[in-house]
Amino acid sequence: MMKEIPYLLRNSTIAHLKDNALYIGDRRLFPFERTFVRCESVREIAAALSAMVTQGGGPLEVALQTMRFVRLEIQQGRLPATLASFFDARDLLAAARPTNTTMARALDALLGQYVSIEEAMERVDEDVSAALAHWEAIYRQMGKLGSSLLTDKSAVLTTCFAEHSLLYTLQYAQADNKAISLYVNETRPYLQGSRLTAPSAAELGIPVTVIGDGMGATLLREGSIDCYMTACDVLCMDGTVVNKTGTLANAIAASYYGIPYYPFSISPDPTKGGVADLVMEERDPQEMKECRGIPTTTSEVAGRYPAFDIIEPSLVTSVVTPKGILTPKEVKEHFL
Amino acid sequence: MMKEIPYLLRNSTIAHLKDNALYIGDRRLFPFERTFVRCESVREIAAALSAMVTQGGGPLEVALQTMRFVRLEIQQGRLPATLASFFDARDLLAAARPTNTTMARALDALLGQYVSIEEAMERVDEDVSAALAHWEAIYRQMGKLGSSLLTDKSAVLTTCFAEHSLLYTLQYAQADNKAISLYVNETRPYLQGSRLTAPSAAELGIPVTVIGDGMGATLLREGSIDCYMTACDVLCMDGTVVNKTGTLANAIAASYYGIPYYPFSISPDPTKGGVADLVMEERDPQEMKECRGIPTTTSEVAGRYPAFDIIEPSLVTSVVTPKGILTPKEVKEHFL
Repeated sequence: MMKEIPYLLRNSTIAHLKDNALYIGDRRLFPFERTFVRCESVREIAAALSAMVTQGGGPLEVALQTMRFVRLEIQQGRLPATLASFFDARDLLAAARPTNTTMARALDALLGQYVSIEEAMERVDEDVSAALAHWEAIYRQMGKLGSSLLTDKSAVLTTCFAEHSLLYTLQYAQADNKAISLYVNETRPYLQGSRLTAPSAAELGIPVTVIGDGMGATLLREGSIDCYMTACDVLCMDGTVVNKTGTLANAIAASYYGIPYYPFSISPDPTKGGVADLVMEERDPQEMKECRGIPTTTSEVAGRYPAFDIIEPSLVTSVVTPKGILTPKEVKEHFL
Repeated sequence: MMKEIPYLLRNSTIAHLKDNALYIGDRRLFPFERTFVRCESVREIAAALSAMVTQGGGPLEVALQTMRFVRLEIQQGRLPATLASFFDARDLLAAARPTNTTMARALDALLGQYVSIEEAMERVDEDVSAALAHWEAIYRQMGKLGSSLLTDKSAVLTTCFAEHSLLYTLQYAQADNKAISLYVNETRPYLQGSRLTAPSAAELGIPVTVIGDGMGATLLREGSIDCYMTACDVLCMDGTVVNKTGTLANAIAASYYGIPYYPFSISPDPTKGGVADLVMEERDPQEMKECRGIPTTTSEVAGRYPAFDIIEPSLVTSVVTPKGILTPKEVKEHFL
């Protein structure tokens, strides 16, 4: 018997429509506040994604709900009744976070079905529901595959917030009576590890320990970790993994100490052959000079916040994908 | 012409005697406040070291000044006029931070000279001055050697606060007209990188950029870094390096990308053969769940704060020591 999915991963918590607006769960304030950002236009939704109101897999669900929102806007005369209204929204959202392409490809798959605005208006609500169900099935598949990599008393290291993939992995392992413990890098500057992953794992009753972003190697060296698991913002066809900054340091250390690294890719990207095809997001340096809004250094000091890491295929043990657990070399034969 | 040494590294800023008390510069609040903790007993001084009012090389200077303080306490009748008063102080201070043994060995060298309390009372003030001058000469030697490892436009990565060794390295490089830039991990949970190293480098006019503790590998991968330099809390005779948590992750990544790693050891420890002889400090887990006093996660989540990393000799390119720049294998022939 599985527990309820943690608060942060419930569909309605990620994003929901109400009173002609899209409400996005504000992950920037969680777990200290459980609030929503109210967006009254596609532009406001895109701005919320840029500002990382939600992140990781959140933008995918926000984008799907935005298509319902566009339909509502057209119905009520606030957007022109043309397919372009949907495609313009798609472009605005895709530009908001350029590295992870899952959202853009999901919108393309959805909108690509429609040959007329009438068809879009008639079907989009239902198609969004089908898409959400499709992703939910993939998430559960990731969890089942992920839990198959764990044994009783496995200690898992993770970085940032690997969302459904990791939390379902933990839940399926629990359902199989495996006692799992989790270590998570706090994931500066936004603290997704401390704020999102750790409290979500605690909701499931998983013993979870927050460590600094430089401490993964420390724990790997002392033998405290059995495997490293993360999300995967982009999986290229040559097996290159893109994920939150900090992932590379742990992947190198895991490889150095002979500990397996398993990223979860809910949607390998057939348009990305390898590193040359990637668009890497560089965020505002100011973000690296603050923690929860308080300064951590002085104004004459610079900062850098490269949002994502590129992890060479040689550092990846296997990738958990909707088509099974694959070595980096096997990715292209299943997804290209 | 060298600039004045940065604020944090001036003798009087680290610790000074005034009005029958020892004032320790409070590095926990720097750069936001420039204040001192007033200690009226050896016990209070030891508690200040445990609480990391000062850290890194700070405790060494505090310990030396404490011997002057003990003399004052004896003179004024607050401590018994015995050599034991000095040795008890030595033991209290040494226990306050167990990993770095430089302070304890410096006190042993100082106190080992005295055969009577009269001799100690007569000579300790002057001997402390001589010891401070001895360390200052070593610091400058470290800086000269360190700067010899840099060329014009070198970009240096560092972690935590490598104090005089790094800052004199930067100053001597400046004096040689080498344009150096510095990247520093913020060094959670205490942010020594963001709070101590970055503002001190900025005081010298060195362009300095703060990055997250997991981002060293990111920058090494993209080719932004020419060498990695850190302090070295313990250098064992087999070349094993102990330094602030987070150092290992960067050392592994630097080795992986073929970038040299140079730790500065002001005092290799002949009593430490290797890993088996180390005492590794584990600090309060609560510290990993806060940043500048504000919570970063929820109460049901655990934390860990292993204060130091152990870095295998195979990851160390050369160690900068008072006897020159040595490979890890050469350490024992010079210091054992």
